[in-house]
Amino acid sequence: MSATIPQPSHDDQSGTAGEGAATLAEIARAAGVSAPTVSKVLNGRGDVAPATRSRVEDLLRRHGYQRRRGSMQPAPLLDLVFHELESSWAMEVIRGVERVAGQEGLSVVLSESAGRLSPGQTWVDGVLARRPTGVILVLSGLDPAQRAQLISRDIPFVVLDPAGDPGEDVPAIGATNWQGGLAATRHLLDLGHTRIGVLGGPAGMMCSRARIDGYRAALETAGVRYDPDLVVSGNFHHEAGYTAGLELLRRPDRPTAVFTGNDLQALGLYEAARELGLSIPRDLSVVGFDDLPLATWISPPLTTVRQPLTEMAEAAARLVLDLSRGREPSTLRVDLATRLVERSSTAPPAGASGDAAAGSE
Amino acid sequence: MSATIPQPSHDDQSGTAGEGAATLAEIARAAGVSAPTVSKVLNGRGDVAPATRSRVEDLLRRHGYQRRRGSMQPAPLLDLVFHELESSWAMEVIRGVERVAGQEGLSVVLSESAGRLSPGQTWVDGVLARRPTGVILVLSGLDPAQRAQLISRDIPFVVLDPAGDPGEDVPAIGATNWQGGLAATRHLLDLGHTRIGVLGGPAGMMCSRARIDGYRAALETAGVRYDPDLVVSGNFHHEAGYTAGLELLRRPDRPTAVFTGNDLQALGLYEAARELGLSIPRDLSVVGFDDLPLATWISPPLTTVRQPLTEMAEAAARLVLDLSRGREPSTLRVDLATRLVERSSTAPPAGASGDAAAGSE
Repeated sequence: MSATIPQPSHDDQSGTAGEGAATLAEIARAAGVSAPTVSKVLNGRGDVAPATRSRVEDLLRRHGYQRRRGSMQPAPLLDLVFHELESSWAMEVIRGVERVAGQEGLSVVLSESAGRLSPGQTWVDGVLARRPTGVILVLSGLDPAQRAQLISRDIPFVVLDPAGDPGEDVPAIGATNWQGGLAATRHLLDLGHTRIGVLGGPAGMMCSRARIDGYRAALETAGVRYDPDLVVSGNFHHEAGYTAGLELLRRPDRPTAVFTGNDLQALGLYEAARELGLSIPRDLSVVGFDDLPLATWISPPLTTVRQPLTEMAEAAARLVLDLSRGREPSTLRVDLATRLVERSSTAPPAGASGDAAAGSE
Repeated sequence: MSATIPQPSHDDQSGTAGEGAATLAEIARAAGVSAPTVSKVLNGRGDVAPATRSRVEDLLRRHGYQRRRGSMQPAPLLDLVFHELESSWAMEVIRGVERVAGQEGLSVVLSESAGRLSPGQTWVDGVLARRPTGVILVLSGLDPAQRAQLISRDIPFVVLDPAGDPGEDVPAIGATNWQGGLAATRHLLDLGHTRIGVLGGPAGMMCSRARIDGYRAALETAGVRYDPDLVVSGNFHHEAGYTAGLELLRRPDRPTAVFTGNDLQALGLYEAARELGLSIPRDLSVVGFDDLPLATWISPPLTTVRQPLTEMAEAAARLVLDLSRGREPSTLRVDLATRLVERSSTAPPAGASGDAAAGSE
C-alpha cells in the first residue's frame, strides 16, 4: 500500500543545481553567502543566523525566486490552519480535508493561528522545513511576506472561507454567503415578519458582511426599510449570541425575528429568549447559518442556512492538490451553494394570521 | 524562534553504524538483504518489495531490535489518532494537544482510524516515514505488530482514554470513569430517585463499563436493587441517545432519572423525552458525562460529570514528550479526576417531597 504514498526526498542541500542554480547562485552571491546557505533558508533549517536568513529571504522575494516545480518531492502532508479551533464547525472542515487526504495517501498537519488572521512565523518555519504538498488556510490568510515565502518554495496554498479579501489571485473556496442571507431573510419576510434583526458575525469578516448584505437586499427588494439599529455584531461564539441577543430583545420595539451570523450565536439567542420569557417561534423566529449537527438537536430544531462545510473542505483539498500537480484550475475562486433548511424555529409573527400558533412549541 | 525547533535529520541510509550496527547487520544477513534495505524498512520507505519488508519486520520483531534512543532526531511532529473524528469531544482533545505542541515547537498530524479500534497499516507506514516525536492514540490502540513496529523505531506512544484494555505496560491517560458514574448516581439517589436508568456507551469500551460499574456501586451501597433491564447501550452518538432513550422511556415502569454515557446521548434523550411529552427535570432527571460546551447551552442546562478532556490531552502530550526524551514516568497510567457539575436537568422525582417542582422548566 505504501508504494502509492509519495515519499519525501531527503536532503537537498547538495541538490541545488536541480532547482534553478543560476538564480540561486546569484542570490547567494548578492547575499554574500554560500549556495548551501541559501538552500538551508529555502528549507526552513534553523541553523542559519537570523540576520542572514532575513537578508536571503529579502533577496528571494525581490528576485521572484521560485523553486522549479517537480524539482523536489514534497512530503505526503497537507497543512490545515485554523483561525481558531472551536466547536464542531472546525470538525466539519477537518472531516472533509481528512477524507481527501486519506484517499490520496496524505496526512493532515493541523495548526491554529490562535485567533490571529494570519499564522505566526513559527508556523511558516515549520512549513518550510516539512515541505507539505499543500496548505489550506481556514478563515485566515497569509501576509505578503509569508505568501512570498511559500511561493518561492513552490508550496501551493488555498484559502477556505476567506475572512478578509484575499485578492483575486489567491485560490479560495467559499460559500454563497450573500445568497444565504437573502434566502434566510426572504423566508422570514414570507412568514409575515417585517421587524427582522440581525445578530451578525464579526464586522470585519467578509463572509459575515456578505450575509448581512444579502439580508439587506431581501428587505429592500421587498420594500421593507433597512433599519441599522436592528443589526448588531457578534464574534461567532455562543456567548456573543447571548449578550447581543439580550441587547436586541430588550428593546421596546424588539424584532419579531432574528437572522444570526451562525448556529452557535443562534443558540446564545435561544438562551437570551428563554431568560426573557420569550418562546421560540411563538414570540421570536430565529434563523441560523451553518447547519451544524446541533441545529437538529436543540429545541426547537433550528431553521438555518446550510453551508456545506465538509464539501467546501474537500474542494479546497482537491484544489490545492491540483495546484501541487501543476494543474491550473479554470477559476481561482469557487463558492459552493448554501440553502435554507426549514425546521421549527420560525413561524409567522404573533398576531399575524390564524396559523401563527401552528409552529409554536 | 525556529532555533528551538528540533530539525529532522535527513537521510540516515548510510548512518546505520550509529544505531546498533551489529544487530542491524545481523538482521540484514538473516533476511538475505543489504543493511541499507533494512534501514529503508525501518524508515517506512516505499521502495522495498512487500515480501522483503514483511520478512525484515518479522526479524526486527523476533530479535527485539530497537533503534538506539537519540541516534536520530525525530521530526518536530506529534501524531494524534482518533477512533472517529466526531463532535466537539474530539475538538476538546485536539485543543489540549495543540497547546502543548505549540509550546514545544511541534506540529500535530491528525488522523482518524475510521471507526476501527486500531489504525490501518497505511497510517503506520506514514508514521515510520515521517518519524514523529511521539504518537497519541485516542480511544484506540495498536495491534501487537504495530506496537512492535513503533518500538523498534523508538517512536513512543500513549493511549488517551483507552477503549480496550491496553495492557499494564502501555502508557495511558484516562479519567476516573468509575468515580464519575458513582457521583452521578449518588446525586440522583440523594434527590430521591430509586428507579435510575443508564443509557450507556458502547458495551465493549472500558471507559463505558467503568461508568456503569460506578453506577451499580452507588446503587448497591445505597441498598437499591440493581435492575439490568434499566441498563441499555448506545454508541456515544446523539441518535443512539434518542432511539435507546425512547426504548427506556416507553416502558410502563419507566425510570424517573437516567444517567447517560455521554453528553451527546443526553441530548438524544432530551429529544426522546420531548417527543413523549416528558418535561426535564419535572418528569425525568438526566445526568450526562463529559461536560462539553453544549451542556450549558441546551435547555435545561445539563447536569453532567465533567471529564477534563483538554487537560487529559495535555497530560498525554507531555507524557509522550517525556518518553521521547528518555524520561521514564513514575507511573504508566494516570487517571484525571472527574467531578459532578450540577445544572438544571436534575430534580427530585415527581411525587416526592414538596420541592419537586422547584427545578422544573
